[in-house]
Amino acid sequence: MCADIIALGSSRNDIHYTAQFSAPSPGGVTRLCADDNDKKVRDWFRDQVLALGADYKVNATGTQFALIEGMDNSIPPIAMGSHLDTVATGGRFDGPLGVLCALEVLRSFREQDIKTRAPLVAINWTNEEGARFFPPLGSSLVYAGQSTIEAAHASYSNDGSPETMGGELQRIGYVGSGPNTFDEFPISAHFEVHVEQQSSLERADKPVGWVQGWEGMTWYEVVFRGADGHANTADMHGRKDSVQGAARFMTSVETLAHNMHGRSTVTAIESGPVGACNIQSRTKVVFCLMHAEGEGLLEMGRRAEGLAKTAASTHGLELDMTRSLHILPGDFTPEAVDCVARACGDKGVGARTLTGHDSLETLLVAPTAMVFVRSKDGVSHSAKEWSDKDDCAEGALVLGKSVLNFDEYLLKK
Amino acid sequence: MCADIIALGSSRNDIHYTAQFSAPSPGGVTRLCADDNDKKVRDWFRDQVLALGADYKVNATGTQFALIEGMDNSIPPIAMGSHLDTVATGGRFDGPLGVLCALEVLRSFREQDIKTRAPLVAINWTNEEGARFFPPLGSSLVYAGQSTIEAAHASYSNDGSPETMGGELQRIGYVGSGPNTFDEFPISAHFEVHVEQQSSLERADKPVGWVQGWEGMTWYEVVFRGADGHANTADMHGRKDSVQGAARFMTSVETLAHNMHGRSTVTAIESGPVGACNIQSRTKVVFCLMHAEGEGLLEMGRRAEGLAKTAASTHGLELDMTRSLHILPGDFTPEAVDCVARACGDKGVGARTLTGHDSLETLLVAPTAMVFVRSKDGVSHSAKEWSDKDDCAEGALVLGKSVLNFDEYLLKK
Repeated sequence: MCADIIALGSSRNDIHYTAQFSAPSPGGVTRLCADDNDKKVRDWFRDQVLALGADYKVNATGTQFALIEGMDNSIPPIAMGSHLDTVATGGRFDGPLGVLCALEVLRSFREQDIKTRAPLVAINWTNEEGARFFPPLGSSLVYAGQSTIEAAHASYSNDGSPETMGGELQRIGYVGSGPNTFDEFPISAHFEVHVEQQSSLERADKPVGWVQGWEGMTWYEVVFRGADGHANTADMHGRKDSVQGAARFMTSVETLAHNMHGRSTVTAIESGPVGACNIQSRTKVVFCLMHAEGEGLLEMGRRAEGLAKTAASTHGLELDMTRSLHILPGDFTPEAVDCVARACGDKGVGARTLTGHDSLETLLVAPTAMVFVRSKDGVSHSAKEWSDKDDCAEGALVLGKSVLNFDEYLLKK
Repeated sequence: MCADIIALGSSRNDIHYTAQFSAPSPGGVTRLCADDNDKKVRDWFRDQVLALGADYKVNATGTQFALIEGMDNSIPPIAMGSHLDTVATGGRFDGPLGVLCALEVLRSFREQDIKTRAPLVAINWTNEEGARFFPPLGSSLVYAGQSTIEAAHASYSNDGSPETMGGELQRIGYVGSGPNTFDEFPISAHFEVHVEQQSSLERADKPVGWVQGWEGMTWYEVVFRGADGHANTADMHGRKDSVQGAARFMTSVETLAHNMHGRSTVTAIESGPVGACNIQSRTKVVFCLMHAEGEGLLEMGRRAEGLAKTAASTHGLELDMTRSLHILPGDFTPEAVDCVARACGDKGVGARTLTGHDSLETLLVAPTAMVFVRSKDGVSHSAKEWSDKDDCAEGALVLGKSVLNFDEYLLKK
């Protein structure tokens, strides 16, 4: 059955067509959750799926669902989802490729008259990136019962502006009525195409990969509190300078990552009081730790907490440290991964993702697997992000075959 | 003549009365240039000087002038000035004490029927602190011919908001018609009372001091530019992480200050892109260097530039470094300082200021000197800033006597 599918390659064209829905970003895409460009790409996606005759719905957190009937509509649909939002310095592929491959599969099945027993649903999840509003995975958390619509609506602006995700979704006309949760709208499985964002496929010389699971990651917010003082006149000795405590901490946490064979990134720093002549008495640092092993990740976290305490005591600072997100390494559903691996065949290789995706949430409620597409030099969250045309087409083909494999698997089950 | 003056102590009461014109700041004052509280304290000051029968004017950059006639109004007035604005974490004394002592001298001379040959003028200079709008000394720079009204109006918000100083002065009704420059309104001298903001008077057990001059200070803005990338998935090796370059630089510049027996302070850091999952590709650090010796200050600057280059090359970053303000050590006018020293008598001691004041600008056009009032523990730019009642009264007394001394000096000249 699978051998008959032909890749249309439409996802690749759609990638470059929809890249116009962006703030100025030469080569890349800057389309933040619920901004004007997000509205434009959502409207475009709606028009595409309505043209395919899909049953189209928007839920309360803005997620778009395009349902195509199967031969047996008593079976929960097989979902293909990802996100059309990007980070501020986004490439064209991280997110959009997954949604546009789902669209290509719907088109392809229609053109080639391929019928599935289970219905199919293409999903554009809201605020996967968390680039404008925190936390990320804004809508899939609600779907998986890990958060509420109210909490998602209250997601705050990372840049300190007063907008919330709920307010901005309302502004662009994307607060719908549902379905909001797995209980309201169960799915049989969730498959997601994504660019790899690292170099394991490149090294293996393979265009695609099946994603066996993910490495662990932990996010912390640490606030150092010192004492106000005059920037020019205060003695150096005895200062409680929070930004110096933060600087010491930031350099030490980078060394920690090297020592532990993990990774770490400071993703934000802000200090105050604002002004021309103040010792900075409050500095907030947001950072993440990544490690392939669960125990390694926990140990990195313990050591990072120790380094923050050392920096604080060295500079006479008070310290608040919050672990805001903590994901231990894990595996996707073996049956679903097997469907992807068989779809890849010789063209693919097993891989692990090094970051979070909406698929980590759907996994909590349904069989889930991901398809990786080769990334040039592993670069992501950058205008330099790139995947070749043939690799993208291969990704869409693997997605379609994976869905057919799972549809068959459901029959046998 | 001087022996007859009695301190009213009104400045001290006014300090605590006008502290109400503040955003919430327990014990301190938060009154940023051209905010609503700045308008309230300006209105209050206007009412006080009008009640004394002063000729009251507001200039184009918001500075308030209260002129009291002398016996010979052909002589340019002797000025007593400071500022009513504070930093975000301001105390009650830095700035307001100087303006309120000037007001006390005007009241005191009137009550005690003390007449000067030269007219007197009390001045509230706009935006000395530069806490809300950059640069500091916003109006005295224009007065001394070092900037223009247009440039002062364009002073930008340190917090990135779109307001300018000119727009906000207009909003609170404090863009007047002049006088704007020394040429339009020459003064015979400028005297300024200020809290010491360090501990030399405390150590000498003296309530007041004559300020012989200032130590040098240089301000830099350094921008590190790296490369965008994914916070979770990017390899540690080969990153161009601007915030790590900045952290390395910040710790090294603190060490530099210790090594050179100077001082340094990072007063602001900001990084981007904003978002939950980006390597920070652009980080700006604003810092100042202070040194007692001119050559020491220049050498600190050269070494800081080298440290920034080292941090940039270590992390593969591009670097822009701008010296935004550079003040070499210098001395106030000997004749004016002598007037203050004689006014202090046994109660005072010579000192040097470690920061900038509007008096550094007036010195460019007229004889200038400052009076220091003892600061508790040298703390400033903090709600903990404190000067005792008797010390404040002594400061006002010394200001009055200094003015009388200078009035006599003008006669002899």
